Amino acid sequence: MNIKTIIKENHWEPLYLKAIIGIEKESQRIKEDGVISVKDHPASFGNRSFHPYIQTDFAESQLELVTPPAESIDEVMQWLSAIHDVVHQSIPEEEYLLPYSLPSIMPEDKDISVAKLDTKEDVHYRKYLVDVYGKRKQMMSGIHYNFEFHPDLLEAMFKKQSTYRDFNQFQTRLYFKLAHNFLRYQWVLTYLYGASIVVEKEYFQDNEIPADIPDHFIRSLRSSKYGYVNKDDIQISYESMEAYTESIERMVTEGKLIEEKEFYSSVRFRGGTTAREILEQGIKYLEFRLFDLNPFAPYGIAAEDMHVIHYFLMYLTWIDEEAGEADWEKGKRMNEATAFENPLSHSNYQAEGIALLEGMLEMMAELGANGEQRALVEDKLLAFHEPERTLSGQLARMHEQGTDLIKWGNEKAIANKEAALEEPYLLTGFEDMELSTQILLFDAIKVGLNIEILDRSDQFLALRYKDHVEYVKNGNMTALDTYIAPLIMENKVVTKLILAKNGYSVPASREYHQIEDAWADYGWFEDKKFVIKPKSTNYGLGITIFKEGAKEASFKEAIEIAFAEDDTVLVEDFVEGTEYRFFVLGDETKAVLLRVPANIQGDGTRTIRELVEAKNQDPLRGQNHRSPLEKIQLGKIERLTLEEQGYDFDSIPPAGQTVYLRDNSNVSTGGDSIDYTDDVHESYKQIAAGITRSVGAKIAGVDMMIKDYRKPANKDGEAGYGVIEANFNPMMMMHIYPYIGRGRRLTLDVLALLFPEMAIQVEEGRETV
Amino acid sequence: MNIKTIIKENHWEPLYLKAIIGIEKESQRIKEDGVISVKDHPASFGNRSFHPYIQTDFAESQLELVTPPAESIDEVMQWLSAIHDVVHQSIPEEEYLLPYSLPSIMPEDKDISVAKLDTKEDVHYRKYLVDVYGKRKQMMSGIHYNFEFHPDLLEAMFKKQSTYRDFNQFQTRLYFKLAHNFLRYQWVLTYLYGASIVVEKEYFQDNEIPADIPDHFIRSLRSSKYGYVNKDDIQISYESMEAYTESIERMVTEGKLIEEKEFYSSVRFRGGTTAREILEQGIKYLEFRLFDLNPFAPYGIAAEDMHVIHYFLMYLTWIDEEAGEADWEKGKRMNEATAFENPLSHSNYQAEGIALLEGMLEMMAELGANGEQRALVEDKLLAFHEPERTLSGQLARMHEQGTDLIKWGNEKAIANKEAALEEPYLLTGFEDMELSTQILLFDAIKVGLNIEILDRSDQFLALRYKDHVEYVKNGNMTALDTYIAPLIMENKVVTKLILAKNGYSVPASREYHQIEDAWADYGWFEDKKFVIKPKSTNYGLGITIFKEGAKEASFKEAIEIAFAEDDTVLVEDFVEGTEYRFFVLGDETKAVLLRVPANIQGDGTRTIRELVEAKNQDPLRGQNHRSPLEKIQLGKIERLTLEEQGYDFDSIPPAGQTVYLRDNSNVSTGGDSIDYTDDVHESYKQIAAGITRSVGAKIAGVDMMIKDYRKPANKDGEAGYGVIEANFNPMMMMHIYPYIGRGRRLTLDVLALLFPEMAIQVEEGRETV
Repeated sequence: MNIKTIIKENHWEPLYLKAIIGIEKESQRIKEDGVISVKDHPASFGNRSFHPYIQTDFAESQLELVTPPAESIDEVMQWLSAIHDVVHQSIPEEEYLLPYSLPSIMPEDKDISVAKLDTKEDVHYRKYLVDVYGKRKQMMSGIHYNFEFHPDLLEAMFKKQSTYRDFNQFQTRLYFKLAHNFLRYQWVLTYLYGASIVVEKEYFQDNEIPADIPDHFIRSLRSSKYGYVNKDDIQISYESMEAYTESIERMVTEGKLIEEKEFYSSVRFRGGTTAREILEQGIKYLEFRLFDLNPFAPYGIAAEDMHVIHYFLMYLTWIDEEAGEADWEKGKRMNEATAFENPLSHSNYQAEGIALLEGMLEMMAELGANGEQRALVEDKLLAFHEPERTLSGQLARMHEQGTDLIKWGNEKAIANKEAALEEPYLLTGFEDMELSTQILLFDAIKVGLNIEILDRSDQFLALRYKDHVEYVKNGNMTALDTYIAPLIMENKVVTKLILAKNGYSVPASREYHQIEDAWADYGWFEDKKFVIKPKSTNYGLGITIFKEGAKEASFKEAIEIAFAEDDTVLVEDFVEGTEYRFFVLGDETKAVLLRVPANIQGDGTRTIRELVEAKNQDPLRGQNHRSPLEKIQLGKIERLTLEEQGYDFDSIPPAGQTVYLRDNSNVSTGGDSIDYTDDVHESYKQIAAGITRSVGAKIAGVDMMIKDYRKPANKDGEAGYGVIEANFNPMMMMHIYPYIGRGRRLTLDVLALLFPEMAIQVEEGRETV
Repeated sequence: MNIKTIIKENHWEPLYLKAIIGIEKESQRIKEDGVISVKDHPASFGNRSFHPYIQTDFAESQLELVTPPAESIDEVMQWLSAIHDVVHQSIPEEEYLLPYSLPSIMPEDKDISVAKLDTKEDVHYRKYLVDVYGKRKQMMSGIHYNFEFHPDLLEAMFKKQSTYRDFNQFQTRLYFKLAHNFLRYQWVLTYLYGASIVVEKEYFQDNEIPADIPDHFIRSLRSSKYGYVNKDDIQISYESMEAYTESIERMVTEGKLIEEKEFYSSVRFRGGTTAREILEQGIKYLEFRLFDLNPFAPYGIAAEDMHVIHYFLMYLTWIDEEAGEADWEKGKRMNEATAFENPLSHSNYQAEGIALLEGMLEMMAELGANGEQRALVEDKLLAFHEPERTLSGQLARMHEQGTDLIKWGNEKAIANKEAALEEPYLLTGFEDMELSTQILLFDAIKVGLNIEILDRSDQFLALRYKDHVEYVKNGNMTALDTYIAPLIMENKVVTKLILAKNGYSVPASREYHQIEDAWADYGWFEDKKFVIKPKSTNYGLGITIFKEGAKEASFKEAIEIAFAEDDTVLVEDFVEGTEYRFFVLGDETKAVLLRVPANIQGDGTRTIRELVEAKNQDPLRGQNHRSPLEKIQLGKIERLTLEEQGYDFDSIPPAGQTVYLRDNSNVSTGGDSIDYTDDVHESYKQIAAGITRSVGAKIAGVDMMIKDYRKPANKDGEAGYGVIEANFNPMMMMHIYPYIGRGRRLTLDVLALLFPEMAIQVEEGRETV
């Protein structure tokens, strides 16, 4: 089977370049000074027994972040950055993530807490590791890179070849070839990406630097024979998948390995729990384990690195296998030698490295890779001529030039966290999605739900816990609500009918289609408090409010004004009070908000323009719904609103005076949001919950006019409130990040309602919001 | 309290004319020859113990149709006609509704079956009636007219007066006045609307016409002293509500009445179960009971009659009460005298009648009633000068002119039923609503659900059985489905992802935004069967199908053609077979339909134009979705489609040849619908149900391509089917009234799913569909 030929003959180049990739990234939680945290794995990260994204590796302090399989490097990076956002925002205030593979300051054995896992097996296994390898070696962190050919490619290639009758055998052979070549050429990656350069005696269990380590700085301690490798008596054959299986089984039988997974190779076969199972069922994907953390990349690996690694792997599949026995042994020796090299020296195998990268570039040309991609590989080719361009070389050069690498690492850790905290309402990698969906994704990652983004531009998610799947659109459109509930809420007439029938105080209104019919009813309204309004209206045009009845002439005129705006006019009872938004979820009001029209507070010295500018500095204020609050605009409507009060943008309002730039209180036009959840009388919250039940909904935003939010709603006679409307898919952001008052993490409430079995995780998650 | 003054001073004229009205209409089920049916009350009318619209009165054969309270006469008539539609379509084929109050042919006592009601009390009461009054008198039918002032009016008037401190007292007084005046002037209505004119000996228990009946034809036997009235020893006072209560209670105590409801007055107080209760809680509305069936009106009363009666009642409220004692006795005497008058003679009280109608017209002028309304009353004024204009006069004149009134009545009964059966898919009175909602309303009326139309133009209904309320929009949008289900179905990408994940056969597709990207994937499609199509397309423009792979040049050209129509192009696996629509409800496929593009069958003599015209004669075909099928158009698309086949509208296709006028199979463009429910293999029905479950829906229309509908779907290898899409709010009409094959009453299935407690009624209802 010549892959090269099959791909080229069938024009499958684009398909060949596609793959399914997943990253596991370990790193230590440290304090500001680089000392590893002695705190337990944060409880807010849910339960490690099932968490798909946030795990611990060996030590309690050692986070393992796992991205879901993704079809592109961009997508992998999105997930990796998003998971980092969650981690950065949720670890204790004084903690950071160490950007190095090796601890900057190795703790004493007694201070290394082995991960407190749930299952006996996990605990037992880690105890065994401590006994055999010591604790310190286990503290090294790195990147595992999971690679799977695109299923369409495998299927298509299988059909084009005739060597293998069985698809699993075919698949296994392909992956085996890749693994084989990887073992042979892995040293190239250690040369380019090795980054655990500092050798300190504290890394060793006996506090002594082994005599054969050539220098204080090497390319990669972690990838060297003193890294996370097996003892020399572990001999595994890569002659064939059968030989591999037999040799690893023998090692376990002979007691040299406690179980198969103790065999630490830089490549692992995936697709079953044992080698035998994989042999039978076929290799499904490969896990490459030799990558040090790239301390320059905020997430331990850069997208550029991933592209180069991807082409490297494609190339290893593209070329033939090297003839000759046990080339994996040769590869291992070359890799260990490379690891020991001085970071600023040329590679011992420079010629082979250059040849390999040149081969990669040739393949890329044949596959039609673009210039940008080729430049990445060309850059690595250059690094074979200029070792200071490698990661280890860069670090060594920095040290030479006087940089304290420990301090630099700590600063990097702090800077990475600060960047993640800057706009906490954005989820890095998913900023194109709606804010509410970003926060929901954040919380879903945090509590450990499996996430699938079904349609990104449509904000459509599938969330899963074990077999329980829930679909969510736009943050809170779910199966919790019935189909009819939003249809009821969408129809204001129907909503009113139903609410009135259920005993809620709804302003009565009459609808007119003819001026004369409305005029004829004057007698009915004469002495009432009422509002005349066009059925639909913009910026309040055509609305007249009569708070103390109306003279006939005024009534008729107001009707005419309203009919000028729409051909249907409503005359509605005027409801006194202030409007509050109640966010109801399940059977409970979870948040109450007062929205105040865009405004500034005069100080007697600054102009309105300057005051607006100052208020707009708030990081919560942005534009086009990319932030919880909107910047106040200085547009036509604002100018008109000010004019009515005798101001313009350059007026200087007296100190302490609130000046409104809008009549409408929408947050989307620069309004303020003020949390009243703990302030309004319980009775109104219950009414809002009841209203939501009445329209058959589980999630609704109920707008109510309230006369005095501190006094209980009065059922007899004057209700003290009037329902304005009930809204489906209500906004969550304004409650989560209000302008004033405590934020209410409604996204967690949505998750708790969708997944009652995750109530504990959600409550823990709430702690660090 | 002077009502006239209050109304006029406050300009409440429009409000004064509003009222809540409900009709109860009794009539006998007869056979073609006028003989009363001896069959039981049809089981398809559900359960009489709670049915809100279709009841029986005294006899098993005597239907009582009840309209819900409505705010306008138009609305009352809509309900009355709709209920008649249901009755006409659901009674046995050989039965009709007698348009007369008196049976044309009075059955023998032994053939009169007393209504077989559920409760002991009802059975006992009817037995008592037989003993005291005999069976025959009970066979008379009529109209009861329920009248309630608009609550807004009562509330407003109460506030403007100072005589009554208590609202209930005020209300009672107002209704009492109306009742009082009604009793005094009821004779006017008997004069105008009396219509039980024929006096036959069979109507009397002893088969003898009483000596005091003056003639063979009178104005109204039913309203006379031989109508449904109490014996003379029943003396009730209308002096006051208190006096009324005391006297009726005394009659019961003395055993002269078995219970209060045995008191048959032409007006009854409503608002409680006993007079005492009404006295305490206030009269809530009045029931006027003296109306004979108007045999000229298809529903027993005409809208015109109702308008006149309405103004009559308003007038009796408008004027003062007549002074003098016991005027109700006077009124009763005048009414009985009027009932005995010869239909073609002038009224004995002509002057009073004319004065009253003139008074009504004056009031109408003051209230601003329009000319059309006034003309109705003027017409009745004329009837005081020309007795042949009264209902009884018209009947008598017809007899004089040789009409056999029995035969005429039977013919009327048949014509009324035929009219109702002409377009069975329309619900008279509600033709403005969507067809599916009309049928759902039909079925809801039939099985006895309480219906409230929340928003007519929005097709929004509330259905209720006891305390169980369900909302329905557009026929099948309900609380059965979750909010997310239609959102999933609306998004074809998400639907596909979910269905594929759940193991259903979905054509794989790739999406392209760039011509070059699509071209680059040629190798992938080269040997496949596939379809290239713009993401959205009209009339199939831009679509190319490759059933046996494609040459590269053809592939590239087809991609270009598709991109000319849309900026997103899909390349999708081609699914072979024929498309069927599966209607899934609950967990079951309830109907399967094949849709065939608009077509005609050649006969070798007629042109396509003529053949289309002939096919369009089918009463099921109409226009603009006002019928189950649409007429075939002869438009541009039809012309182009024919052109491709070498035809034009004037071509004469050979006998037996099917010529298609459209490529698309939509029913809305003249396509045929063919029921396949019992023909397709069960496995596909289960797949459709499973698909519906997968997207979280209870109601969906699943479109599937099937290779051979007789063979089972094959899970291994070739599935034999491919899912095209799942649709929410799927059309029901095309299944209920297919072009070919058995109709499937899906609306009943919707009701059964919404109200499982009504399963028995629904199954009974299905019998007469």
